[in-house]
Amino acid sequence: MVKQERAARTRDSLIRSAAEVFDQGGSSAPSLTLISSRAGVSNGALHFHFASKAALVDAVGESALVRLLAVANGARQPGQGQVQLLVDATHALAGALRADVVLRVGFALSGDASRAAGTDLRQHWRSWVERTVRQAEARGELRRGAGVREAVMAVVAVTMGFEVLGTRDAAWLSASTVAGFWQLLLPTLVSADVLAAIDADGSHGVRALYGVR
Amino acid sequence: MVKQERAARTRDSLIRSAAEVFDQGGSSAPSLTLISSRAGVSNGALHFHFASKAALVDAVGESALVRLLAVANGARQPGQGQVQLLVDATHALAGALRADVVLRVGFALSGDASRAAGTDLRQHWRSWVERTVRQAEARGELRRGAGVREAVMAVVAVTMGFEVLGTRDAAWLSASTVAGFWQLLLPTLVSADVLAAIDADGSHGVRALYGVR
Repeated sequence: MVKQERAARTRDSLIRSAAEVFDQGGSSAPSLTLISSRAGVSNGALHFHFASKAALVDAVGESALVRLLAVANGARQPGQGQVQLLVDATHALAGALRADVVLRVGFALSGDASRAAGTDLRQHWRSWVERTVRQAEARGELRRGAGVREAVMAVVAVTMGFEVLGTRDAAWLSASTVAGFWQLLLPTLVSADVLAAIDADGSHGVRALYGVR
Repeated sequence: MVKQERAARTRDSLIRSAAEVFDQGGSSAPSLTLISSRAGVSNGALHFHFASKAALVDAVGESALVRLLAVANGARQPGQGQVQLLVDATHALAGALRADVVLRVGFALSGDASRAAGTDLRQHWRSWVERTVRQAEARGELRRGAGVREAVMAVVAVTMGFEVLGTRDAAWLSASTVAGFWQLLLPTLVSADVLAAIDADGSHGVRALYGVR
């Protein structure tokens, strides 16, 4: 049991170390030796856990997906409307992208054309947003005539824009940037009574959880 | 003169070939031999034009910047308002990203953390958007209370989102996606009389020029 825990911890630290190396290395070829030494393990241990560099890259993508779903679903709160959930989840995602290198690299891998087979975080995020917007529509939160498809595309595109721009300048992932987008979008997206109740800065629970500034 | 023209043409075809190889290769290391053979020139010719792979990458970035500015400024038309120019430029950019591999790769290079020194297309696009939104404000096209900073951030983030999502699925760069975003944003961004005159699908001239569907 202890041995299994230690193996799991080594695996996690290799995934984190790989993400750090990918994050800094950009498009240049990452070195497995650098990854294992950063994780404080031998090359042999790396090869015990991951048969190939591709397997390690896939593990980073899968770990990032688990984190993404934890962030999005973690924004749920009792009594919260679906649009508020969407607002909160975008704040939580921005906060998590600032802090979590594995999540950041997971999204970057999504855009890598040479890796068509792996986990596509952007696609998973799109599905999550779509589901939430559809539920908002079903509950009558959306303004009459507001297009569900247009709303999904705008929210997904803008958050993915924050993500890529945030790799160079963290201001794109600040709470004020995210809130500014919602202030522009919400009046055309939701009905007037829903609008009055929504907090574009994110609800209190999310602000506390992700240290939203 | 003829010799200079031929040299310029060889240089351009090497830049295009490099962009095609980068576009397909993702984060794996691109091969200079593949680039020169795709361009139909010898390895010697490649090294005559570009002293190093870094120089070739920089040339792709610079060529992409020239194209970006041509696309954005090419959306200008006589008598056009500044917000309509912004709408038209985003349609033109989406159309150009669908068709132009050098432009596409130029934006991708912007996000490459290992290449901090080169041309940053995203930063140039942001400056262009900011200038245009400020001119729209100066001319009284914006709605009272519409935040210039929020508008700039939203337009830049959403277009960069379309760009990165479009590398995997061209539907993100379709005219209907771009128009859908503007339909959501325009009512909160511009005054009512300006709104009535704006075409979210892009003006006729831009539709013709970029084959916007």
